[in-house]
Amino acid sequence: MTSAVAMVELWRGGLLESTHRGHAVICNGDGEVIEAWGNPAQIIFPRSSCKIIQALPLMESGAAAAAGLTDAQLALACASHQGAAIHTGMVRDWLANLGMSEPDLRCGSHEPYDRDARNGLILGHEEPCQIHNNCSGKHSGFLTLTRHLKAGPEYVEIDHPVQQAIRTATEEVTGEASAGYGIDGCSAPNFAMSVQGLAQAMGAFAAARETGSLRERAMHRLAHAMAAHPALVAGEGRACTELMRAMDGRVAIKTGAEAVFVAMIPEQGIGIALKIEDGSSRAAEAAIAALLVRRGVLDAQHPATRKRLNAVQRNWRGRETGILCTAAGFV
Amino acid sequence: MTSAVAMVELWRGGLLESTHRGHAVICNGDGEVIEAWGNPAQIIFPRSSCKIIQALPLMESGAAAAAGLTDAQLALACASHQGAAIHTGMVRDWLANLGMSEPDLRCGSHEPYDRDARNGLILGHEEPCQIHNNCSGKHSGFLTLTRHLKAGPEYVEIDHPVQQAIRTATEEVTGEASAGYGIDGCSAPNFAMSVQGLAQAMGAFAAARETGSLRERAMHRLAHAMAAHPALVAGEGRACTELMRAMDGRVAIKTGAEAVFVAMIPEQGIGIALKIEDGSSRAAEAAIAALLVRRGVLDAQHPATRKRLNAVQRNWRGRETGILCTAAGFV
Repeated sequence: MTSAVAMVELWRGGLLESTHRGHAVICNGDGEVIEAWGNPAQIIFPRSSCKIIQALPLMESGAAAAAGLTDAQLALACASHQGAAIHTGMVRDWLANLGMSEPDLRCGSHEPYDRDARNGLILGHEEPCQIHNNCSGKHSGFLTLTRHLKAGPEYVEIDHPVQQAIRTATEEVTGEASAGYGIDGCSAPNFAMSVQGLAQAMGAFAAARETGSLRERAMHRLAHAMAAHPALVAGEGRACTELMRAMDGRVAIKTGAEAVFVAMIPEQGIGIALKIEDGSSRAAEAAIAALLVRRGVLDAQHPATRKRLNAVQRNWRGRETGILCTAAGFV
Repeated sequence: MTSAVAMVELWRGGLLESTHRGHAVICNGDGEVIEAWGNPAQIIFPRSSCKIIQALPLMESGAAAAAGLTDAQLALACASHQGAAIHTGMVRDWLANLGMSEPDLRCGSHEPYDRDARNGLILGHEEPCQIHNNCSGKHSGFLTLTRHLKAGPEYVEIDHPVQQAIRTATEEVTGEASAGYGIDGCSAPNFAMSVQGLAQAMGAFAAARETGSLRERAMHRLAHAMAAHPALVAGEGRACTELMRAMDGRVAIKTGAEAVFVAMIPEQGIGIALKIEDGSSRAAEAAIAALLVRRGVLDAQHPATRKRLNAVQRNWRGRETGILCTAAGFV
């Protein structure tokens, strides 16, 4: 079994300061491995990188169509958003359209990452609510499916029909039985899979035809919804949003906690999955940028790229302190 | 040359999710290695873990005595503080006693980590200033020495007498020529050293006698000032503060950016230095806690320990999601 390989390094004053190791796999739509680094069989939790997989039952059940969900809402269902006004406003409207409200969510509350939204709460002496949770779009999708299935309110329990449908879809698109599940930050089950299984699923999303099977149509619409709405998938300043914008809507990408990153490149019919073993987001962002550059879909010199790859590090006075770059031998 | 070894792991749902590797060395006061993991010769930047070394010229020059610095001020000179009112108030008074003020600092500004201080600025529509910088205590020490030496105002430049004195002290206490230097987050030079060199220095601080040489007396006073003022060295909720309190002032510990951690244990005359290769603070905190437990000075079941070692991870709804613990074979 191959170990994780050095992928990203932080240099300071001409000396290596920190190193990040990881695993990465690129698959085509038939699940064939095009390239791999580290151990493709490494079992990981995809965390939020699999929100697009978790949205498949919402599409395939007919729940999305019955609720008239727009591409923007589908992008938000696949998002880890900043809790900015554009995100929370959409979630509030979505819940209202379902005849539901904030207490129906089961994602928990945390301070929004969006600075204006955060400061607005502080200035208004308000506490954050579950709508600010970065997963509230995904949970709105869960509630839409719950309503459609006439299922009970505890939709994050492992034996709830929503989660069982997600388990089935997950095992189908990854081509493997899940090694188990963990509880995610938002309380939903998160099914473990190999890096290769996740890459295979992303390859299938990338290769899905608009006029194919029910699953292909669902995959095609979700991937294109994400690529078309970069600001909804994350938010201003964030890697998913800025890198998708830099690729002009041609590619869908998504981060997951503990340093997972995936990409779907429809024009090439390939998917990418990577996991940095130490869970560092900065390294996952640098590594996915490097692989997107390698595949020819991201400009290495674009400011959104240079913010994360060959990224000059500056301190509180703006002085240059170092650089974050790929390790020799990675790409 | 030995590679970094697995030290800390994050488990979720009974499966390994993330792994942190690192290097650690324990030295006695004579610089002898008691125990080591990974590569003792690994060159690292100590970052803020070496603030106690950077404070040696302040003591040995007579500047601290001339300015009448208290143990509390010395602890703050060795701190990475939260920017809470107790920290910023002391820095303001210190600067005023020098006949100086905020613009004389060269550390740059960032939002204080202390939540009340941060929210207070937002509510008052105020911007953070350099006094909120976590290094403003260290920089107050630099200014005190600058004044004593009648040196120029640009005290963070590499050729400034303050930084040259720090370089000399650093090479003496680590027992090695510095491999180079980088610019730290606060703009001061940070001299590279081996993990063993840093551990040797910490061993010397731990073994220093109150009535020994000029250097020993300086080392003794600084280490005891830190151990006696845990709230000044970091702040509420932080690892340095909580773990030092858990050890009842018997041990001084200090974190540094990019996952460095050091400890000085006077009653055993030993020092510890560790670096997690990926720069993750959570792993450095877990690893130093594990080594302090191993040395018998920290209770494995103390809440401050359990927050960081064998630490149950909970999500936004308080549900248990996993555990952060040491890797098999580490300690």
